[in-house]
Amino acid sequence: MKRFTFVLIIITSTQLYLRMPLKNDLILRTIRREKTERTPVWLMRQAGRILPEYRKVRNSVSGFKELVETPELAAEVTVQPVDILGTDAAIIFSDILVIPEAMGLKYEMIEKKGPLFPETVRTEPDLKKLRVADAGDIQYTIDAIRITKKELDGRVPVIGFAGAPWTIFAYMVEGSGSKTFSKARAMLYTHPEFSHRLLAMITESTINYLQGQISAGADLVQLFDSWAGILSPAHYKEFSLPYIAEICDAIQEVPKTVFAKDAWFARRSIGKINCNTVGLDWCMDIRESRELIGDKVLQGNLDPCALYAGYDEITEQTRHMLNSFGPYYHIANLGHGVYPDTDPEKVKHFVNVVKEYSAGMR
Amino acid sequence: MKRFTFVLIIITSTQLYLRMPLKNDLILRTIRREKTERTPVWLMRQAGRILPEYRKVRNSVSGFKELVETPELAAEVTVQPVDILGTDAAIIFSDILVIPEAMGLKYEMIEKKGPLFPETVRTEPDLKKLRVADAGDIQYTIDAIRITKKELDGRVPVIGFAGAPWTIFAYMVEGSGSKTFSKARAMLYTHPEFSHRLLAMITESTINYLQGQISAGADLVQLFDSWAGILSPAHYKEFSLPYIAEICDAIQEVPKTVFAKDAWFARRSIGKINCNTVGLDWCMDIRESRELIGDKVLQGNLDPCALYAGYDEITEQTRHMLNSFGPYYHIANLGHGVYPDTDPEKVKHFVNVVKEYSAGMR
Repeated sequence: MKRFTFVLIIITSTQLYLRMPLKNDLILRTIRREKTERTPVWLMRQAGRILPEYRKVRNSVSGFKELVETPELAAEVTVQPVDILGTDAAIIFSDILVIPEAMGLKYEMIEKKGPLFPETVRTEPDLKKLRVADAGDIQYTIDAIRITKKELDGRVPVIGFAGAPWTIFAYMVEGSGSKTFSKARAMLYTHPEFSHRLLAMITESTINYLQGQISAGADLVQLFDSWAGILSPAHYKEFSLPYIAEICDAIQEVPKTVFAKDAWFARRSIGKINCNTVGLDWCMDIRESRELIGDKVLQGNLDPCALYAGYDEITEQTRHMLNSFGPYYHIANLGHGVYPDTDPEKVKHFVNVVKEYSAGMR
Repeated sequence: MKRFTFVLIIITSTQLYLRMPLKNDLILRTIRREKTERTPVWLMRQAGRILPEYRKVRNSVSGFKELVETPELAAEVTVQPVDILGTDAAIIFSDILVIPEAMGLKYEMIEKKGPLFPETVRTEPDLKKLRVADAGDIQYTIDAIRITKKELDGRVPVIGFAGAPWTIFAYMVEGSGSKTFSKARAMLYTHPEFSHRLLAMITESTINYLQGQISAGADLVQLFDSWAGILSPAHYKEFSLPYIAEICDAIQEVPKTVFAKDAWFARRSIGKINCNTVGLDWCMDIRESRELIGDKVLQGNLDPCALYAGYDEITEQTRHMLNSFGPYYHIANLGHGVYPDTDPEKVKHFVNVVKEYSAGMR
């Protein structure tokens, strides 16, 4: 009886964090298409790299993966940009490649080079070695979200995320980053049926993982299709979009954002799937994207390189972006992850310009 | 008097090669918008890499650059794909980075890694060290074109080429290949006036170089804007297009092709500049591109990865592409350079399907 009571208390306490009303729910109200008092702002890759405070934590462990897999530290660097940069959301510090690893395909993160998979998935025996992952296989990120929620104490929402299945597939088949991902793309031509089976396994794993993130308290989730733009429109329609759509249909509890980098040709189709927000990269014209994507909230899209400019130029570029999106249904962000050598003061300036200028646009 | 006669003979003999009527002028007739008997076909990067005959020549010298700089050998590998693959044009074997080198910025080609510039152009003193290049600074490629013309003996036209100024600028500032070219793109935000001066020098050098290629016998020229797609539309309009337009205006003697990879957003603008043909990558929808680009001849655009598929799939994909372009005003090609590990037999198959199927489309 005593033990039973104890368990109940833990559940209640977790639920409390989950349901605690947010002090800053600007992003969520924007996604609900409410006319908010200003434009919300956060940055892709804000958790990490650019902040000296991040590098201090990063240097206290053996490598990037140890940081991802240590919930207390992952939570710490997740909260840092909220404190330091003043963003309207925290995105959980993790990596899209936790999914292949949870499916049975280990990866290494090589400093300054990127991910490397010692083994790849190109044959039936390779595929047979994989399993559909549970959220529990990535418990460290689930735990990191719980700790983050507790530490944020309702200050801002927490964004969960995963890679889109095609992008994960690309790494699993190619074995590393690549300019062309020609081995992964070749697989779609040579073994379409095999490709669909692998993509289905990734999709199922991703749904399990995102549901775990949501149970742990993620207030919204984003799918990153980082290598969307190297597929032909026909292949994108066959091998990427349906799996993104399946994930969006399966996730009902929180709003969903789809960021398909360089997939300019798929904007109309992405506008029709069951997501709330669509991310734009900096090459996508804002007006044209509004027309193609329709009623969804848009997120983006300042060129990350603009943050290398002087303060006045950043102000001008940011205001120009805000004017192009208009005051409502927009979440300000960069058009890609913030580049590692960006000056954090410039990032703060970007955040402040969004806050001040967008308030004046009402 | 004797010496004078001798010189005259040489000039006459060179002119003979230049003006010799072509036995296969299918590409040139297509560019003149004539209704040809079939669709012409060639492949970007056909001269090199995929052919064992190329590798034999390549292995006889110390490296890629020695091959580029040895006219007889460059001509030999230029002619190979005409003999072996049956393409309707030869493209001179060279590299877009001969221009920076002729301007005073040496580069190395690192095997399996790509180009590396030991010095870059980021400051006024860097810029002051550079000069506008003459065609004579790249005499080896000019000579290679002359030898190629002689060896081809009018069988097919010879395509000359250069990088578009933005792409050359990107390498000169960045110092190597890069996924983001963030240093080069940052320069456009931080030092726009400096950027324009460097771009103007590259443009002038490129015009001199292309005029040299044409004097040596190039029957048409192509500009490769390989890194077009990483610029925002506003930056593309300011830092790339005007320089491409300037080159196209300066070259009057032969037809010009512009291939701006991934610059889907610039298709309407490219359709308005003074070029004859526009290259499409494999992500660009053919019908949409025809509408945006207007009256120009289109070139492309099979996904290079399609050539990894089986013969039947290649047939199907190639026919589908040909049907989408329609019978006229199209030069068949891939949507990017042929990948190095492509089976030459598959390439031959692609060439043959274009020839046979397009003849039947009339």
